[in-house]
Order: sequence, then structure tokens, then C-alpha cells
Amino acid sequence: MISTLELAQRAKAAKPTVARLSANDKNRGLYAIASALEQRAQEILEANALDLAHAHSTGMQAGLLDRLTLTQPRIASMAQGCRDIAQLADPIGEVLWMRTRPNGLRIGKQRVPMGVIGIIYEARPNVTVDAAALCFKAGSACLLRGGKEAFHSASCLATIMRQALQAQQLPADAIVLVEDPSRESAQEMMRLTGYLDVLIPRGGANLIRTVVEHATVPVIETGTGNCHIYVDDAADLDMAQSILVNAKCTRVSVCNAAESLLVHAAIAQEFLPMAAQGLSAYNVKLHGCERTRALLGDGVLEATPEDWGREYLDYAISIKVVDSLPEAITHINTHGTGHSECIVTEHYMHAEQFLNEVDAAAVYVNASTRFTDGSEFGFGAEIGISTQKLHARGPMGLEAITSTKYVVRGNGQIR
Amino acid sequence: MISTLELAQRAKAAKPTVARLSANDKNRGLYAIASALEQRAQEILEANALDLAHAHSTGMQAGLLDRLTLTQPRIASMAQGCRDIAQLADPIGEVLWMRTRPNGLRIGKQRVPMGVIGIIYEARPNVTVDAAALCFKAGSACLLRGGKEAFHSASCLATIMRQALQAQQLPADAIVLVEDPSRESAQEMMRLTGYLDVLIPRGGANLIRTVVEHATVPVIETGTGNCHIYVDDAADLDMAQSILVNAKCTRVSVCNAAESLLVHAAIAQEFLPMAAQGLSAYNVKLHGCERTRALLGDGVLEATPEDWGREYLDYAISIKVVDSLPEAITHINTHGTGHSECIVTEHYMHAEQFLNEVDAAAVYVNASTRFTDGSEFGFGAEIGISTQKLHARGPMGLEAITSTKYVVRGNGQIR
Repeated sequence: MISTLELAQRAKAAKPTVARLSANDKNRGLYAIASALEQRAQEILEANALDLAHAHSTGMQAGLLDRLTLTQPRIASMAQGCRDIAQLADPIGEVLWMRTRPNGLRIGKQRVPMGVIGIIYEARPNVTVDAAALCFKAGSACLLRGGKEAFHSASCLATIMRQALQAQQLPADAIVLVEDPSRESAQEMMRLTGYLDVLIPRGGANLIRTVVEHATVPVIETGTGNCHIYVDDAADLDMAQSILVNAKCTRVSVCNAAESLLVHAAIAQEFLPMAAQGLSAYNVKLHGCERTRALLGDGVLEATPEDWGREYLDYAISIKVVDSLPEAITHINTHGTGHSECIVTEHYMHAEQFLNEVDAAAVYVNASTRFTDGSEFGFGAEIGISTQKLHARGPMGLEAITSTKYVVRGNGQIR
Repeated sequence: MISTLELAQRAKAAKPTVARLSANDKNRGLYAIASALEQRAQEILEANALDLAHAHSTGMQAGLLDRLTLTQPRIASMAQGCRDIAQLADPIGEVLWMRTRPNGLRIGKQRVPMGVIGIIYEARPNVTVDAAALCFKAGSACLLRGGKEAFHSASCLATIMRQALQAQQLPADAIVLVEDPSRESAQEMMRLTGYLDVLIPRGGANLIRTVVEHATVPVIETGTGNCHIYVDDAADLDMAQSILVNAKCTRVSVCNAAESLLVHAAIAQEFLPMAAQGLSAYNVKLHGCERTRALLGDGVLEATPEDWGREYLDYAISIKVVDSLPEAITHINTHGTGHSECIVTEHYMHAEQFLNEVDAAAVYVNASTRFTDGSEFGFGAEIGISTQKLHARGPMGLEAITSTKYVVRGNGQIR
């Protein structure tokens, strides 16, 4: 087993070569990876079977098991993902602006590769391919560390990708997988100052908290989402019902799903039954405030103070009646996670106030929070959704994993 | 003494109010601060005298003592700094782009305040005013923690600024100074997760290392600079001499000063004596490689391996003869700190290769590294120079201390 430090050294050594690849070279590599994944699908399924057998023996829960499982169509979809990324414009080299200073210096701000991107993720084998392909297209080497439950699958995928690059005379060390699946290797990655230019944890709240707590390298915090739908007194209530049901029920396990409903008191009596009726089709559990329970009856569970901050990731929602838009905004800014927040209203000033004053990565008027997603936003692919304010906020496409530098052209200027 | 946590809570509580201030309100505050600083100059000088008396009694070294000292003209210059910042365009609210998606959603990326910005700095009273003014204009509250040697000065300046805001019915808690000057308060600031949206250390390498090592809040690392001047075989040697002397000698204590000279072997015999002659006017100590010493003689000290990574911040420079441009680039990428790097050359391809392959915040052709500075770059003011790749790289003006959010306008879209 090669040590994590040595693997980080290899990724770092590959950094200048990867940074200099042309878009054509990178795309050639991505197409080669796509073909190799399809051609070697049998190998991938065999490696995955080892992980699945172990997962069954340890009684892994159904949702996780599903995410761990690879199938022929899922392999095809990973391959297609690589081809889609090849189709995206190359972000590297773009000059964001260039100005000539009074002394004749021409100063340009140019997009450059990040360098080495570390990614810590859980037992989802497809992330190995998605993340590697995005980093490669963005001109960066990557150091990947997947969950130990998916270790055989991830190793097999990484080997195939590396060999595909090598066969194209491209640097295999652009994609490096940590070989030590222990907890220690994750801790070690968080402290690889001088090797990792950024570390992105992709996974649940616990993983992200651990990384934020322990990392000495720069981190991009990705998203837990306690997203709210606020139904204003000036809302179109049919639209509000449709958005609420969509945001809550189409996929409960994702971070852009709604977890809390705020309803203005003036329309609560009319709207809450509509909300309850819409959600009942999906058997959504309701955790309501006192006023909600007074209006909807005993079928509604009593919301505890913890419910306002809870990301259920399940068929459950908290409901609160508020007396004003400012109360709704304050509630969201207090209990939200800064992910995606929505107001349903027909009132111009209410919409503008909500958009301005709610502090979140994405703020919506009259649309489902489920749109917070790289491809829905038109970025073509996504490496995660940032809920921090530094560097990248919201869905992160290729540009979010690049840096910039200032290029200064002179003819002898001194200061 | 109010605890650091409570002060952080106050800054956080002020955050929404500060974020909503119009440009007119913020500018009114900045002009009021400028006038108050001038009107209360006597108070400031008295507070500063306390710090200076203590500094003298502990034998503070001359350079630090100079930075600690306030005078009438220095107070006037701080006030003018506030007025200059008032003149800058308000970065908040700018829409970087707005697109309509196929489903009719209009998605815009809008510049928003960072929230609460923490700044840890050393015994330089003027930073108290500069940093507070920049954060205020950028719509953020700030939590400042200055060096304990400048505590009386900083407290006096912060009080004056807060009172000036209050007199204008603007939120005094936009500017909060940590009252505990002990080491513990700095450690505490580094872990104020949930209170600070970003922490910026401004100071020497030790301070920055400590912050990077211990912070759990997002950090922008500011600059130590081991800057190189590479004199190519195709250089105009007179220009090279002029740039070298300017970059090394005009101000040795700053991070954009040159610390190392690389000379192509083909012109070393001709250029090294010119370099030595230019530097001798300032009594610069030369630490040379063997080939440098062979050409320049015993007056040159032997460069140790540590010299290549050294930020002298003094009248000293390391010198190395290299055989090729790639060797120079590799040397810089190995020993540099990613701050500012310069090639002197008349050769088109050499210039382009250097600009592309050197990994630094600012890369120069034929100009002094001393231009890496917010006002020289046209940003009007500067809160520091970032040497990390995340969020902001190079001189940081107002935009670098803002964030963005996605504003999504729909008419009932669901996914």
C-alpha cells in the first residue's frame, strides 16, 4: 500500500503537466475514459460485487446500498457524464478582464487551474468518476478518498481511468485514489498543507463538520439544506401548493428539498388545508406550531424547537404560521443553512425584500427550491453545492474549481 | 471587559442592518469617521503615547516602533483613506450575470456582503481604520483584533469610529474591536464558526501560519512574498538592472519586494556585475550559488539551501545562475511563495511560457514586482494580498471581501 503522503506527492508532481494540457488533450482523455469504462464494465461490476457482498454482510441500510450499487446502465451513465464534461467549454485561460494602467502596464485577470483538488466522499462509486472528470477538465490533478465501503469499486474505477489516460500519453497521476481506506487517511488529507490547494468534502453533515473542524487546507463546505418555502399573504395559493409539493416530495433525500413551510397568518386558514392535502398524497409527516395544529387538528405532530433546524431528508416537514414577512425572513436567517429559500408571492415589494434580505446561496420567488443544481442552472455539471460564502456559493460547476492569477505585461516599468 | 464571544454576537447582530445600508448611507458614515478622526486627533495621539511609552520600556525594535507611531499627518492620511474609500463604487448589488433558462427561470448571480469579517493584525494602529472602512463599504460588519502593543491606539480609534457612526444613526456595531488583548482572544477568534464568515490575518509569516493551522472558520491567507526576478538570456540587461534594483531596494520590508535573483547562464558573466553594481548602492548583501561566486568573487556570501526559500525583508538577496527557462520556472515554483514573480526578456515565447507556467498570484514580464498592490492595480484600496488560490488571489480590493448569491425569479416553475 502506498502512503497517502506519497500519493499526494504524485498528484502534486503531475500538477504542472495537467495544468498545461490543451482542451483537446483533456477532451481526448475524457473520451478515452468513457470508452474504457464501457469496455471494462464487467471488471467494474465484479469489483462492485465484492463491496456489495461485504455491505450485505454488515447489514447496510437500503438507501446506502442503492447508492453503492453499480449496474450496466449506471456505468453507461458515468461514461456519458465524462463525454458531457468533454463537451463543456474549457474554463482555463479565460481572461476575465484586462486593463491598461496609466503607466502603460497591462494587467489581466486570467482563469488558471486550482492545482491539486482533494475530494473526500462516501460510499458512492460514481463520485469517483464524476469528480475525477471535472477536476481533469478544470486542469487540476485530484486526490480522491472514497468511503471504505466502496473501496473495491473506487479502486477499479480509478485504475481504469488512470490506464485510459496513460494509453493516451496523458498523465495518469492526474487521478490519484487514496489507497488507505482507514479513518486516518481522511484525517491526513485534511492536513496536507502544501499538497492540496483545496479540499471538498462531499457527503453528509457529519463528514462536512469533521472536515471543517480539522482541516488546515482550504475547504469548500458543501451543502446541508434546511430549505424553506414561505407562502406570503399575497401568494397565488394554487402555485404555492404546487411548489410546496414539488420541493418537498419529488426527492426527499437531496439537499435542495424543502424541509420547512412558513405560512403568513392572513392566509393560513385557507392555505394550510391545501398544503396538508397536497402533502398527504406522499404521506408527509407534519410537525406544526400551535397555530398550525389549531387549524389542521391533531393529525399534526407538535413541532419542537429542534424541528425548525432539522434537515429531515425524509417525508416530513415542519410548519410555522408567521405574522409578517420580516418574521419569516428572520426565522429563515436564524434556522436555515444558507442553501435555498423560496417566497411564493404576487407582491413586488415582498419579493424584492425576500430576495435582498434572505442570506442564502440561492433565493427564489415563485419557483421550487429543487432547481438549485448545476445542470438546472446551466453549468452542465456540478461538483457539489457550496453553502459557504468564500470562493464559490451555490451549485459549483467547472469555474468553481478554478483559480485566477494576474498577468502583468510591462516594458520596463518601475515603481 | 466584554468577552470576545459577546462582541462577535454584537457584530453578527449588526450584520443584516449593515448589509442593507445604501451606498449613500455608507459613504455618509465614512465621511463622518474621517472628520471625527481629524477632530479628535489629540485624543488619538494621547492614546498612542501610552502605547509608545510601553513599547520604549520593553525595547521594541525601530521598524516596529515606526509602524506603531501615529502623528498628525498619519491621522490625516487615515482620514483621507476613509474619504477615498467613500469615493469607490459600491460593490454590493452588482449583478455579475443574469440568464433566462429554457423553462423561463431567470437566474442572476448577484454580489452580496460577506457578513462578518474577522481581521487579526499586529501593532499597526492604521490597520484598525483601513480595515474597518473597507469592510463597512463592502456592507460587512467587522470584528478587529489588533496587536496588544497598539491596544490603546486601536481602542481609541475604534471608539471614535463607532461614535461617529452612531451620531449618524448608523450601526456602531458594524465596527467591533476585541477588548481582550491576550493571545487567547486570537485563538478564540479563529474558532468563531457561525459568527465569522471569513477571517483575514494581516501580518508576518508566524501569525499567518498560526491562523491557518488553528482556524475552523474560512481564512484568506495573506502574503509572505519570496519574489523572484528572472533575467532571461534574451533580456535587455539595462532594463533588468533597473527592475532588479527597484524591486529589491525601494522598500525592503514589504511582501512584493524581490528576495531572489535568477540569471540565465548565457548572460551571467555580463549581467551579474551590473546587478552587483546596482545593488551595491544600497549595500545589499548577496547570497550567491557557486557560479555566482565564481563570477563575482568572495564578496558574495555562500547561499545555503535555506536561502532559496528565505524572505529576507532586508537589504539582502539570493542569486542563482540557471541553465534554462524551465529550470528557472521549476526553481520559482519550488521555492516561491506564490506571490509575485518576474521575467525580464525580449523573447515572445519565453515571456508567454513564464506567464503560463509560473504558479503565482501575479506574474510579470518586464516590470517590477513592487506593482503588486491594490492601488497600483487600480482597485483603489487594499485589505491585503492573498497568496491562496481560493476566493481571492493577489491584491484584494472591495470585491474580494464580498460574496455572491443566486437570485432566481420564476412564475410557478416546478421540477
